[in-house]
Amino acid sequence: MKRPTIADVAKAAGVSKGAVSYALNGQPGVSDTTRRRILAAAETLGFRANSAARALAGAPSNVVGLTLHRPAKTLGVEPFFMELVSGLEAELSTHSYALLLQMVSGSDQEIAVYQRWWSDRSVDGVLVCDVRDGDPRIEALTRMGLPAVVIGPPAASGTLASIWSDDGVSLVEAVEYLAALGHRRIARVGGLPELSHTAIRTQTFTRLAEQLQLQTVTVCTDYTGEDGARATRRLLSSPQRPTALIYDNDIMAIAGLAVAAEMGLTVPADLSIIAWDDSPICRLVHPPLTALTRDISAYGTHAARLLLAAIDGKPVTDVHDEPAHLSPRGSTAAPPADAQPSRQAPRRRATRQAA
Amino acid sequence: MKRPTIADVAKAAGVSKGAVSYALNGQPGVSDTTRRRILAAAETLGFRANSAARALAGAPSNVVGLTLHRPAKTLGVEPFFMELVSGLEAELSTHSYALLLQMVSGSDQEIAVYQRWWSDRSVDGVLVCDVRDGDPRIEALTRMGLPAVVIGPPAASGTLASIWSDDGVSLVEAVEYLAALGHRRIARVGGLPELSHTAIRTQTFTRLAEQLQLQTVTVCTDYTGEDGARATRRLLSSPQRPTALIYDNDIMAIAGLAVAAEMGLTVPADLSIIAWDDSPICRLVHPPLTALTRDISAYGTHAARLLLAAIDGKPVTDVHDEPAHLSPRGSTAAPPADAQPSRQAPRRRATRQAA
Repeated sequence: MKRPTIADVAKAAGVSKGAVSYALNGQPGVSDTTRRRILAAAETLGFRANSAARALAGAPSNVVGLTLHRPAKTLGVEPFFMELVSGLEAELSTHSYALLLQMVSGSDQEIAVYQRWWSDRSVDGVLVCDVRDGDPRIEALTRMGLPAVVIGPPAASGTLASIWSDDGVSLVEAVEYLAALGHRRIARVGGLPELSHTAIRTQTFTRLAEQLQLQTVTVCTDYTGEDGARATRRLLSSPQRPTALIYDNDIMAIAGLAVAAEMGLTVPADLSIIAWDDSPICRLVHPPLTALTRDISAYGTHAARLLLAAIDGKPVTDVHDEPAHLSPRGSTAAPPADAQPSRQAPRRRATRQAA
Repeated sequence: MKRPTIADVAKAAGVSKGAVSYALNGQPGVSDTTRRRILAAAETLGFRANSAARALAGAPSNVVGLTLHRPAKTLGVEPFFMELVSGLEAELSTHSYALLLQMVSGSDQEIAVYQRWWSDRSVDGVLVCDVRDGDPRIEALTRMGLPAVVIGPPAASGTLASIWSDDGVSLVEAVEYLAALGHRRIARVGGLPELSHTAIRTQTFTRLAEQLQLQTVTVCTDYTGEDGARATRRLLSSPQRPTALIYDNDIMAIAGLAVAAEMGLTVPADLSIIAWDDSPICRLVHPPLTALTRDISAYGTHAARLLLAAIDGKPVTDVHDEPAHLSPRGSTAAPPADAQPSRQAPRRRATRQAA
């Protein structure tokens, strides 16, 4: 049951190890008769034309690579990423592909990893997450010719194929809903400002504020619950505190819920909260969180499908996945009466004074 | 910037592709002079002695494999696994190792993947999770000689090295604490019964019930919040409902907290809850959950370290990692007075009747 080696095959076929390597790689240097004898010996011994030999012959590795720039510590706390991976795996495993994960500490190291993977042929293609505007990885991957799919906005993915669900559409849905409930002071606890999708959310939010005549503010964070809690405390301590908060991830929304309780505010009577993305945890807390819901696992599956098509050399174009839609639950309601911008009240008072 | 190929090296050195392969694999078939010329050409072109060539020559792949048996869907919801991966990655990345993840649908497929990985040399070693008693993977890995480390109890890991934090010790700490608070009816919402560590927890819980004269019950689940919620409803609907619940993961504990609220029970006044493991979410819900805390990320780091030592051929032995310890927070307190098994009360009544 020990793994058969090239030496075992060589011995069984009565040839040198070099000849076995030639024969298995489909390279010249052995006669057809010898090649057949070697292949038969390899077959008998259960020696597979292994990935190394296949890779030397230019065959696919059946591995897809994913580098992760974020600190390892934050991986464990954000459900989004693991749901994405579960969706990727669901599609990859049906094609007998595995996922190669590597942590990196910055774009330079990330590009070096791509180069090594590609020259090593240890992956057939890569998925690119967390793109920034002018991301150097996009150009580097394009130059290398390594098949790649960007999970992010097409505007930031250059000529690489991208898969993307439009965050602008989702934010409009959430903010218009809050505005319809009567909210006029809405704050957003955003993610890392340098990420392209964060920028799109912030721009949309600013544009909406003008259109709907809202007082809005975006506070950026590092996506951790701690940072989300800090941002929430700051926002809720302002004299004209917001009556609704939108969070760029679910962990921060749950942290915000705890801060509201700690500061004596009732959700949703005193404060409305919307989480983005949704996750099972959003439905488990009390009150359950209104959230922007999308099927992250399906998003991963579609991303994997797109990359496998690119690896197969099929023509691929940018894919617009279904945007997240609002799932109203217990954490949103009309703002408290004293916070409602009732134009009547000051007018009436003014009238009385005038009388 | 296109990836240099064997053909490019062959052209630059004025030899056949076969000769390049021989030269880079350190195999016979080319003269020393030619080999030097080929290596120089490869160097100039930036053609790395790639993983395929190195693997054929028996060099390590610098990849560690991890198969996952659980349904892809549940990955996204359980913080434990992602924290473990983040710890694994933290150690692997400092040694330029990547993690190869593959979903499998059962032990047979899992063993087939191990065999392919090993004969392919696409991994240097594997980590084994979710071990069961008599797990066929243990014997298969031992036979194959593929370096492997079991993340699980040594009793279930055969002659393979294991890393393990003693769940029995942690459960004793939690149950003795609840007993000291006055709880006498304690239920445990457990995980998958076929997993070795679940069995150890259940055995310890049964033994403790006898020692401390407690009424206990264990209900097994599939680790999802939904199943945890169902188990909680069933337990809290019994006429003699438990006054304390211990959950085998944090997601179920949070679901249990929501069920308590839904059934009009106040935590901790009416019901105490302990989560196992701890995760940032446990501190973010209200009340924050008392939990069995361990550094899961460090656990992953230690597991990776042990496997890298095994891959290097160093002698490795079972490692006992620090067990989880209790972090008392807002979800535990003395049981409600009417649930306390006050031995005096019935006696007094009996006395009165006799009088």
